[in-house]
Amino acid sequence: MNWADLTRDELLAMRADLAAAYEAFKAKGLKLDLSRGKPSSDVLDLSNGLLDGLDTHEAEGGTDIRNYGVVDGLPECKRLFSDLLGVPADRMIVGGNSSLTHMYNSMAFCYLFGAPDGSGRQDAVPVPWSSVPGGVKWLCPVPGYDRHFSVTEDFGATLIPVPLLEDGPDMDEVERLCASDPAVKGIWIIPLYSNPTGGVISVEKAGRLASMKTAAPDFRIFWDNAYGVHHLWEAHEAPDIFALCEAAGNPERVFYFFSTSKVNFPGAGIGLVAAGPETVARMVAHLKMQTIGFDKIMQLKTVRFFGGSAANVHEHMKKIAALLRPRFELVLETLDREFAGTGILTWTKPKGGYFISVDVLDGCAKAVVAMAKDAGVVLTGAGATWPYKQDPRDSNIRIAPTYPALAELAQTMELLALCIKLVSIEKLLESK
Amino acid sequence: MNWADLTRDELLAMRADLAAAYEAFKAKGLKLDLSRGKPSSDVLDLSNGLLDGLDTHEAEGGTDIRNYGVVDGLPECKRLFSDLLGVPADRMIVGGNSSLTHMYNSMAFCYLFGAPDGSGRQDAVPVPWSSVPGGVKWLCPVPGYDRHFSVTEDFGATLIPVPLLEDGPDMDEVERLCASDPAVKGIWIIPLYSNPTGGVISVEKAGRLASMKTAAPDFRIFWDNAYGVHHLWEAHEAPDIFALCEAAGNPERVFYFFSTSKVNFPGAGIGLVAAGPETVARMVAHLKMQTIGFDKIMQLKTVRFFGGSAANVHEHMKKIAALLRPRFELVLETLDREFAGTGILTWTKPKGGYFISVDVLDGCAKAVVAMAKDAGVVLTGAGATWPYKQDPRDSNIRIAPTYPALAELAQTMELLALCIKLVSIEKLLESK
Repeated sequence: MNWADLTRDELLAMRADLAAAYEAFKAKGLKLDLSRGKPSSDVLDLSNGLLDGLDTHEAEGGTDIRNYGVVDGLPECKRLFSDLLGVPADRMIVGGNSSLTHMYNSMAFCYLFGAPDGSGRQDAVPVPWSSVPGGVKWLCPVPGYDRHFSVTEDFGATLIPVPLLEDGPDMDEVERLCASDPAVKGIWIIPLYSNPTGGVISVEKAGRLASMKTAAPDFRIFWDNAYGVHHLWEAHEAPDIFALCEAAGNPERVFYFFSTSKVNFPGAGIGLVAAGPETVARMVAHLKMQTIGFDKIMQLKTVRFFGGSAANVHEHMKKIAALLRPRFELVLETLDREFAGTGILTWTKPKGGYFISVDVLDGCAKAVVAMAKDAGVVLTGAGATWPYKQDPRDSNIRIAPTYPALAELAQTMELLALCIKLVSIEKLLESK
Repeated sequence: MNWADLTRDELLAMRADLAAAYEAFKAKGLKLDLSRGKPSSDVLDLSNGLLDGLDTHEAEGGTDIRNYGVVDGLPECKRLFSDLLGVPADRMIVGGNSSLTHMYNSMAFCYLFGAPDGSGRQDAVPVPWSSVPGGVKWLCPVPGYDRHFSVTEDFGATLIPVPLLEDGPDMDEVERLCASDPAVKGIWIIPLYSNPTGGVISVEKAGRLASMKTAAPDFRIFWDNAYGVHHLWEAHEAPDIFALCEAAGNPERVFYFFSTSKVNFPGAGIGLVAAGPETVARMVAHLKMQTIGFDKIMQLKTVRFFGGSAANVHEHMKKIAALLRPRFELVLETLDREFAGTGILTWTKPKGGYFISVDVLDGCAKAVVAMAKDAGVVLTGAGATWPYKQDPRDSNIRIAPTYPALAELAQTMELLALCIKLVSIEKLLESK
């Protein structure tokens, strides 16, 4: 039954019942959080081996992990990630606990020193992005990840939303924007299990990103493969962006990011950035001014934890998926049960990853989030999936079901459904 | 006997004996390294408790150290450092394994976003240092630390050497340079046990740094208290630069750095930056775009290792000093035995820290380092203690005695003495 077809009286009657249920919920005084993509305790427990001691301080080749040195990561750690991701080890800088930091530092590198020409031409002197007249412009597929947008916003770039479709960004629009304006310096991409839609970019679209003509010779794809091994049901694979860029004659066009934040510990995982040969060589040269080496203890622990084997990482991720899958299925079942056919909510089933993206009726997202908050349930802020936190339709809401336990999640979804229905009824009543 | 008074024949006779000794040394085919300030294995072993496991994943207040969050450091870790250093905890950002990274990031903050007015005035909008006409200029007390100089050089600043005297930089010169030129944005200072001289800045000079008139309203002291607890004989204390800056009406003038790299593990210590209230608030705002939090596991381990007590850190440092002191005494005894009264080498006894600075005859440092290298002993490159690695007198050499075992160090010093004597004789022969 499409709710748009209900009469005013029918809507008012429903509202009365729903409002009573909402007040009852509110009276429980709950405190639940569905806002951030944090792993739950049961998922973290799978990696508690990383809290164990190390019976050695020697890494491969006798490197003393307690002392200074090894600026771009332990070779055995790079090899593990190379096997896992299919990215050449000599393109990588491995270290630190945060891929977000690598993204920020890569952006700082471009702003302070300039990015080499995407084609790998050696004769072009990089121009610092801080000196781009009128400032850098940056393409942001929407809905997208708020922390990506914040990085570019922090550097003062002008953020340009482009629609994210099921198989990647609207490439006609991306190509149009890149072709004519040399201030358009880059784009955020989450190739696999996009935050928040859970979609996967197609090889065809990745190829267009790799090969398209850009007015900026130093254009960069910030390719955040955060969910590269985070399957929930069927396993998918991100396109091989390095191969695509090389085949297109743009070997320097991509910055590639990954971390084990959502493989083992968000607070103490291992982050990495990879890039074209010229770019990574320049980054390492600057990195040597910035540190004498990242923490090698957690690098060695991570290698040991997985027995140095990419296959073991995949096995570990299956255990994580087994804990996450019921949470996603609960959310999807609730949405289906409560909203199928109502016409007041649209959503797509994510193919994997950490989030579910829903769209309420236009102009209703903020009201839904506020109403949920009043009843003790924190959702990701409405608008967070858009640059500057401004969703022009005020319709998108990101659901992050990974943190709460299953029983809590069920309660939260019950409340969320109430809020969406109540706010939607108000909206529908406006035109009755 | 001052060697300058020796006759040509006397010098030639000495040269013959010394050259034979050098060749004999060379024939041993040794490989020794006196180049970097790295702790030795016996010193690192004192901290092996940090390789042990953790029996909890909960920090103060129930924070799960495995998960995201706590961007500016665990409260118990900040408290430990605050007790140890006398720096207010609310001025600190604690995290990561490298104070050098904090220095680099603080510089990047100034270059990208600008530093608040040193006086704390809120109405002055910070101007990014990347936009200073003609570029930033930076004061470098010499001899100094090569990695400091590299950071400023990496950002493209013009490095201006100023003499480092026994009690800190030549403040007349510093005040003169700062008073008239608004492009002079800062100065490197190692207050306690300077690298490489081992000197201590006086309270009077620190006070002049804090209160001097600067043409740049956003002038910064980069105060690297790297050796803040690294006593060797008598314990000294760095002046309270925060108090001095505040008393002078320049609460924002200082960036303060410290790490446990040379307290426990260089590769996995904890770094910190502290600054004025306005500066640190702005840095934290940017930091939140850069990371969701540093590794909290090593933070908690560090707190646990010291039982949360600054007094225990000092006890631990006494054990380290007991291992380092014989190394320093061996070097100083060798210098005294071989060079007292010769007039070919000057040096000062460091008050603490990690290094001994010596000056050979003008124009001889590079030759000494090259000659030592030919015999298998790597010294810090000649010139490293000067900006751009250019020592105008080619006389300063930094000795880093902390890494080799005592027997190796004795051999190394024996060779170094031979090299200094042989090169000095060549120099003296030029005017005979």
